[in-house]
Amino acid sequence: MSEKGIVGVDVGGTNIKAALVVARTIKKRVILPTKTHQGLRSSIAQIQSAIEPFIDKANAIGVGIAGIIDSRHGIVKYSPNLRGWHDVKLVHILKKKFKKPVKILNDVNAICLGEWKYGSAKGYNNVFLFTLGTGVGGAAVCEGKLLFGAHGFAGEFGHTVIKYNGPKCTCGAFGHLERYAGARFIVARARRKMRKENSSLNDYHHITPEIIADEAKRGDSVSKRVFSEIGFYIGIGVANIINLLDPDVVIVSGGISRAGNILFEPVRKTVNDRILGKHNRIFKIIPAKLGDDAGILGAAYFATAYDK
Amino acid sequence: MSEKGIVGVDVGGTNIKAALVVARTIKKRVILPTKTHQGLRSSIAQIQSAIEPFIDKANAIGVGIAGIIDSRHGIVKYSPNLRGWHDVKLVHILKKKFKKPVKILNDVNAICLGEWKYGSAKGYNNVFLFTLGTGVGGAAVCEGKLLFGAHGFAGEFGHTVIKYNGPKCTCGAFGHLERYAGARFIVARARRKMRKENSSLNDYHHITPEIIADEAKRGDSVSKRVFSEIGFYIGIGVANIINLLDPDVVIVSGGISRAGNILFEPVRKTVNDRILGKHNRIFKIIPAKLGDDAGILGAAYFATAYDK
Repeated sequence: MSEKGIVGVDVGGTNIKAALVVARTIKKRVILPTKTHQGLRSSIAQIQSAIEPFIDKANAIGVGIAGIIDSRHGIVKYSPNLRGWHDVKLVHILKKKFKKPVKILNDVNAICLGEWKYGSAKGYNNVFLFTLGTGVGGAAVCEGKLLFGAHGFAGEFGHTVIKYNGPKCTCGAFGHLERYAGARFIVARARRKMRKENSSLNDYHHITPEIIADEAKRGDSVSKRVFSEIGFYIGIGVANIINLLDPDVVIVSGGISRAGNILFEPVRKTVNDRILGKHNRIFKIIPAKLGDDAGILGAAYFATAYDK
Repeated sequence: MSEKGIVGVDVGGTNIKAALVVARTIKKRVILPTKTHQGLRSSIAQIQSAIEPFIDKANAIGVGIAGIIDSRHGIVKYSPNLRGWHDVKLVHILKKKFKKPVKILNDVNAICLGEWKYGSAKGYNNVFLFTLGTGVGGAAVCEGKLLFGAHGFAGEFGHTVIKYNGPKCTCGAFGHLERYAGARFIVARARRKMRKENSSLNDYHHITPEIIADEAKRGDSVSKRVFSEIGFYIGIGVANIINLLDPDVVIVSGGISRAGNILFEPVRKTVNDRILGKHNRIFKIIPAKLGDDAGILGAAYFATAYDK
């Protein structure tokens, strides 16, 4: 008889990724559209369809999902990317359907748990992870415990203030890090510079932060300056984290975390300039290792191995 | 036979406060000057003199001390307020002298532990405490564990950036909260306003934040504006904490924490304007309860009851 696995699920605003995880390894995968525009029932049906192919080979289900997640009671309190999701008893729904143990947690917490148990943060007791994408998310391990906070709303790194009188964020408040380092604002910064100066970015119809990173590496001066500027802003945010949480390691996850020195150099320089007691701290700021798998592996781990 | 107690000690840059704590209550106290200008040996002798009167009635000693404290190995790595203190094996020294178990921890962690076990934060799993004084310190309880961080340097709330291009802090970096809310900067803010406008603060030869708070309560418009401004800056810092740590409760400790609404109103307003998901969070921002006793009670608690 072969070893039973766990179904790990990562529910995003666009896609649902699910996989069978056996002995800490992803065996088979499925990706389905989230169908959030069709409402709550359709999205739940899609989550069930993503789990279905693996359920006979699994002992448990773990789901990572964006938003405020009450892991203890198994409720999705609110999810900004999933239309109509308010106080959804997801654990109850999935247990009833599949008759197996189910646990849910915030998606960035799942990524953090994945990188902590199997990836870049393995072996450390104090970890901070942040994701760079449309939004800027965060999650922490403090003294060997994943930080949920009082309402499952800890880790909102993108909505920390780096300039109290700065520009307005998508959330309505001012000077938040996401307003500088969220994907659309990185692209807008590049476009502003392109108006004044020649750039190889003009060859592209559609610009993304990944394209800007590639062009920066090829020597485009507009792209290089975009990254040195956003690296500075991210560095300010990371310096605040280091001063507050004193982590062993800071993990950068998401699309542009693979940009290399073009991103990490200005981040590290700014952190070094801005933290207290730099000679007494040893820490690393490094890219995540597991890519998209981190969320699935973290959710699967949470389903059975984590004591919360 | 009467119950044995614990000696709780709070080592500050000016004074050493020690007390015999029996059944969670302070029985007897002593205050001695720290004599830091006379060097390391004199300060250690003073700590020993403060413990001496209580040692026969105690089972253990707990010491709270400003700086980077390696609690696990019992070493004061560095203390900015204590001259010559570098890598001092304080636990070893005190154990040798008194032949009893000794534990040490950072002073703000001791205050936080005291307020968490006996004071304003009692019963909560996620707590942030900050102190307003010469400096601005911080400490956190995350998921039911006191946060030390990788190097015992967590909680540097005063050195979090609220404006990346703000004025220079005493530590050398820019736009730190302490540069706005540290005692000397509160007083400097009042003095700048007094030059342009009549104020009852002119009746004082020496101005402190506590005096400004008193005059604000009496209606002095300069003092009132000083507090509404520093309340705003503190609120920005607290909003960052709430977005990151999602605490049940934020405790304000130190001299001006007793200022009441004059301080708490602008802090709470700013926090409300700046946090994400305010309708999904229930939290309190309240003053500390135990005053100077928090550090002594916390250090005593740490000596025997805390599992680190």
